[in-house]
Amino acid sequence: MPINPNADIEITAFRWVPEFAQGVVRDLRARWALEEAGLDYRVRLIGQPRPDGYVKEQPFEQVPVLRDSHVQIFESGAIVQYIAEKKEDLLPRDPQGRFRAIQWTYAALNSVEPAILNLLLIDVFYKGEEWATLRRPGAEDFVKLKLKRVSDWLGDKDWLEGRFTIGDLVMVTVFRFLRHTNLVAEFSNLASYVKRGEARPAFQQALNDQLAAFAANAPQPEGAAA
Amino acid sequence: MPINPNADIEITAFRWVPEFAQGVVRDLRARWALEEAGLDYRVRLIGQPRPDGYVKEQPFEQVPVLRDSHVQIFESGAIVQYIAEKKEDLLPRDPQGRFRAIQWTYAALNSVEPAILNLLLIDVFYKGEEWATLRRPGAEDFVKLKLKRVSDWLGDKDWLEGRFTIGDLVMVTVFRFLRHTNLVAEFSNLASYVKRGEARPAFQQALNDQLAAFAANAPQPEGAAA
Repeated sequence: MPINPNADIEITAFRWVPEFAQGVVRDLRARWALEEAGLDYRVRLIGQPRPDGYVKEQPFEQVPVLRDSHVQIFESGAIVQYIAEKKEDLLPRDPQGRFRAIQWTYAALNSVEPAILNLLLIDVFYKGEEWATLRRPGAEDFVKLKLKRVSDWLGDKDWLEGRFTIGDLVMVTVFRFLRHTNLVAEFSNLASYVKRGEARPAFQQALNDQLAAFAANAPQPEGAAA
Repeated sequence: MPINPNADIEITAFRWVPEFAQGVVRDLRARWALEEAGLDYRVRLIGQPRPDGYVKEQPFEQVPVLRDSHVQIFESGAIVQYIAEKKEDLLPRDPQGRFRAIQWTYAALNSVEPAILNLLLIDVFYKGEEWATLRRPGAEDFVKLKLKRVSDWLGDKDWLEGRFTIGDLVMVTVFRFLRHTNLVAEFSNLASYVKRGEARPAFQQALNDQLAAFAANAPQPEGAAA
């Protein structure tokens, strides 16, 4: 689905981020869900400092915010659920199927992501700090425990509940925060699971569109200006 | 609403936990939502080791799991949303009101709770470890930043979106993980907000019921057996 400047749905995304964050910024979840749902959207790119008033749209000054003629909301988990309610493909309509998918969306964001982001912060933001060096082995063990729990659940299934839902969409993006490590590869079914998610055309389109904005807005190296 | 052994809805809870966790275990969210919704429920108490097969109900071996004649689900965020969909009081029916509430539920669990639980772990589980001592000031600053964001948003409103929703229910329980500190008190509107939540009769009933199980199942002190 090409991005459409006249679309009803608008999301916010960052104009540019450093390389370690490229391909994992959370607007990817919204883009991916929109692509899966076949809904066109436009993008409002923002940077630092944030535009005046953005904190009223997103109290933590993060992305994405989604707005359309019906709602204005933040938090990627809520946004993918909102998109999914428009299309049955991403969220079954029967109560059990529906809430099993929603449950995995929450699980990805609350039971798995915090351990993984903690390790990412240790490895990127706090690298070299004494506490980070001391804490890293324990933080890695905690990530492995979380991965093992999801791996044991997944078993030989393609997706967490058999068919692809927003729970998988968010879980795959959470695991991608570990791409600077080999931890996911230690669980062969999780490695296949992430590859399966990334191979979806909707994911590829979403990723390419996020990266294209960063490429177009990359800071000029010092002295490169003519 | 008295707990009813014949209720259709069942939740799991821990038989007993150490004092630092009493009153904050996550089944409190399910109990509180059920009380707000006026739905009776029964409780299946579990302990360590977990009952055979529990990992198939809850892959992280935590509580609560909710089951009734329609669904079996885990993750407190999904469970409060499931309960709230039964009663308009906790979750408005219009798309904007509905997704503003859901957005705050995700925000509480993904944008706020990880920073707060990190500090709780440093203060309780890892107290005295060198990395924890070194990291604590930064971890506390990060919590204060999150509190400031929510405080700025809340302003002089009673609830995050004007009226009480599941977003407030979960946010209040997240802030309660800081009860061993004075951090919430540094933001007078947040301190009032937590008190306002805790003063609701549904919260009081839920808390009392969680604590009653712990009191009834407290380990006997060594040598206390007759």
